[in-house]
Amino acid sequence: MKDINDLLSLFRPDSAEEESIRKTVDFVFEKIVYYCRENNIDAEPVLVGSVAKGTNLRDGDIDIFVRFEKKYPRAKMEKLGLSIGHFVLENGKEKYAEHPYVTGFIDGKKVDIVPSYRMLPGENILSSVDRTPLHTEYVKSKLSLEGKDEVRKLKLFMKHIGVYGSDARTLGFSGYICELLIINTGNFIKTIEMFATMRGKLIIGDPQYTEVFQSPAIVIDPTDSTRNAAAAISLENLSRMKFCSRLYLNGKLPEYNQSRGGRKKDKKERGTTLRVFRVKKPDILDDILYPQALRFKNAIWGIMERNDLRPISWEICMQDHIDVIIESENKVVPALKTHRGPPVDEPSSIDFYNKWMNMEISRGPYILGDRIYVDLLRQQKSISDVVREGLKKINIGKNIDDQKETMEIFDPYDPGRDSCALDLFYSKFIFQVHPPEKTSRNTRSS
Amino acid sequence: MKDINDLLSLFRPDSAEEESIRKTVDFVFEKIVYYCRENNIDAEPVLVGSVAKGTNLRDGDIDIFVRFEKKYPRAKMEKLGLSIGHFVLENGKEKYAEHPYVTGFIDGKKVDIVPSYRMLPGENILSSVDRTPLHTEYVKSKLSLEGKDEVRKLKLFMKHIGVYGSDARTLGFSGYICELLIINTGNFIKTIEMFATMRGKLIIGDPQYTEVFQSPAIVIDPTDSTRNAAAAISLENLSRMKFCSRLYLNGKLPEYNQSRGGRKKDKKERGTTLRVFRVKKPDILDDILYPQALRFKNAIWGIMERNDLRPISWEICMQDHIDVIIESENKVVPALKTHRGPPVDEPSSIDFYNKWMNMEISRGPYILGDRIYVDLLRQQKSISDVVREGLKKINIGKNIDDQKETMEIFDPYDPGRDSCALDLFYSKFIFQVHPPEKTSRNTRSS
Repeated sequence: MKDINDLLSLFRPDSAEEESIRKTVDFVFEKIVYYCRENNIDAEPVLVGSVAKGTNLRDGDIDIFVRFEKKYPRAKMEKLGLSIGHFVLENGKEKYAEHPYVTGFIDGKKVDIVPSYRMLPGENILSSVDRTPLHTEYVKSKLSLEGKDEVRKLKLFMKHIGVYGSDARTLGFSGYICELLIINTGNFIKTIEMFATMRGKLIIGDPQYTEVFQSPAIVIDPTDSTRNAAAAISLENLSRMKFCSRLYLNGKLPEYNQSRGGRKKDKKERGTTLRVFRVKKPDILDDILYPQALRFKNAIWGIMERNDLRPISWEICMQDHIDVIIESENKVVPALKTHRGPPVDEPSSIDFYNKWMNMEISRGPYILGDRIYVDLLRQQKSISDVVREGLKKINIGKNIDDQKETMEIFDPYDPGRDSCALDLFYSKFIFQVHPPEKTSRNTRSS
Repeated sequence: MKDINDLLSLFRPDSAEEESIRKTVDFVFEKIVYYCRENNIDAEPVLVGSVAKGTNLRDGDIDIFVRFEKKYPRAKMEKLGLSIGHFVLENGKEKYAEHPYVTGFIDGKKVDIVPSYRMLPGENILSSVDRTPLHTEYVKSKLSLEGKDEVRKLKLFMKHIGVYGSDARTLGFSGYICELLIINTGNFIKTIEMFATMRGKLIIGDPQYTEVFQSPAIVIDPTDSTRNAAAAISLENLSRMKFCSRLYLNGKLPEYNQSRGGRKKDKKERGTTLRVFRVKKPDILDDILYPQALRFKNAIWGIMERNDLRPISWEICMQDHIDVIIESENKVVPALKTHRGPPVDEPSSIDFYNKWMNMEISRGPYILGDRIYVDLLRQQKSISDVVREGLKKINIGKNIDDQKETMEIFDPYDPGRDSCALDLFYSKFIFQVHPPEKTSRNTRSS
């Protein structure tokens, strides 16, 4: 990859951007204070997120929270929050994370205005966004000016290998985790050295707090010692971070290389079968949709497995549609089915025998080990038939269940067919390769 | 099956046969005693086996041991044993089990003359044949006249379902085990009831002796409490005995039904691939050869498994040749090979990456879980090529290694090709189906 310092100078906001951010924040703050005073609302604006902490990259979002007195019931607070948001952002759109919030653009900068409650460190959290201001305070108090750029380098490194972001799709490292890592190790290179030599889990925090967690990565939140701030990080992403850190220190971490990934190869080269399962993409946040897409994939995978189609690998791409691609060894259900009956110790083994002795079967009943078996022949159904039939009986979640009826199943190599999932499929690399589209804002918590 | 009492009257030796056996035994005894006296050998004949115990079936063998004083060294004893055997059996042939012995025919009855040492119960056994006279004494002392016919019924039942015989091929119940079962339960039907309701292992004997054994069937030898007399019995055969006992008590145990087994079916019905691996059959005892045939099968099976040919089932038939038949899901090695590298925690994962980054591969290197992988493409070799290549590196045992060069590999459905292994393959049933040939004498120990 490029020199990390060159990357930093490319992606660090320049003074013009910093000035523009400052103006936007001032403008938003004034309007919120004005609206609250006029309407007698006990709340104030607070700048949070990477801008507040000085760890933002070029063209980042501006996150401004409106902190309400805890006397407001949740519904009331959310309603007031939205009205403030719309007052500030003239063409703002409502989105829904833990609370509804308003997002819009000022001077070409994306601004989110998010309602929350006033919290002190150690107080019981009402919802996870309420933590964000505490995180902001903590990082501001711990991070030096140089530390901020070290965080930026770490974020750029993680973006390069595709593990930056704690959303449901990425399952990677959040900005807050990057900040905690730099606070802990001191700088970028020490963090990389830590990952390069790490064995097993990532664990940061007092053992009395860390030992209750099972995840591959455990980083105790300094503002709440009962919380694992690294819970989102998947084993794969921790592995990618370790491996790429090792490569980086050896001077061998590559640029993302299109000639290795992204090729639409001739399927015959692999001798396998590829199928795309496509449903319409409902208009909801990726963070809510992606886990459902994953359940959708798991349902199809399970059906294929139970029918001996022998699935091998998969990808999910959510662009205009939800495309699940699954590669399998078999194109049709194998005729032979070795059907396992009960152990001979069970009286029901006799029922199994009586049933199959009266049927036209391929072989048996016979005994292997301590059980009775028969060899049956089944119809050699196509992947498409088996999956359509199987999905009827499986409840995936309303958003996707509604789309089952219009699901398309196709071979991505068929003339006129294509899928971004196929590109992902052939892009598999030590980096996590993200879908080509610009995804919508995934998550609100830091 | 037929009524067990009808079977008994069919297969119990009639009085003419009993008279003929008596005459033969007297004749053999006289000749042995004469030879020993003339040659000053300290040994005497003893009648052992099922004839001695009165549990023999029609047309059974006559087993006569020559018991030597322990002063004779093994080589001397064996040499004298053979000379006695040849003196008695004019056209006798030498066979080799634990000691060499002589087998031949007198008046159409097969007679084995086997050398052994004089032993008392509890004495350290010099070789396992030395136990046979002790077994004979024990059973004679415990079994009533009625008990003898109960043993015969049990043997006939076990022959019917194919689990009678403790040879390396059958791995079933020996005659001695049948006798011990009847001595234990009292009669045939109680033995069947015991198996029909048994859960888990067959265990007979004091727990202090049985608990040291791991086999599916444990029956402590009353003449040697450190020995499991049922060690040969396989889990399958114990299961068959339980299951068929259950069926028998329900009046549902069938005759062996050719219309269910033994069909040479159209291979296309199963959508699988069948291959016969044929080598010449060396002229040695089945008990020595069969374990090697099994190793031969295991070697081929392992090669097929490692090459993702996905073997499903197998049979071995030893008639004129050793024929191993293996059914597999794949006819050729699949092109795609998902090649697993080291865990990313290991520095060697970098070597793996460097190696494959310079190669033309299908996909990767990529990370799954905590390891690095690549997808490779291989040549889609045939079963025959892969197995021939793989067997070169595997040592199976001299008798079969010598035959590898001339091994034939063929599809049993090819015109002009056939194999008794294919008949066995389609005969798979709750009974153990034995190869169609008359096998040679398998074993000498009871």
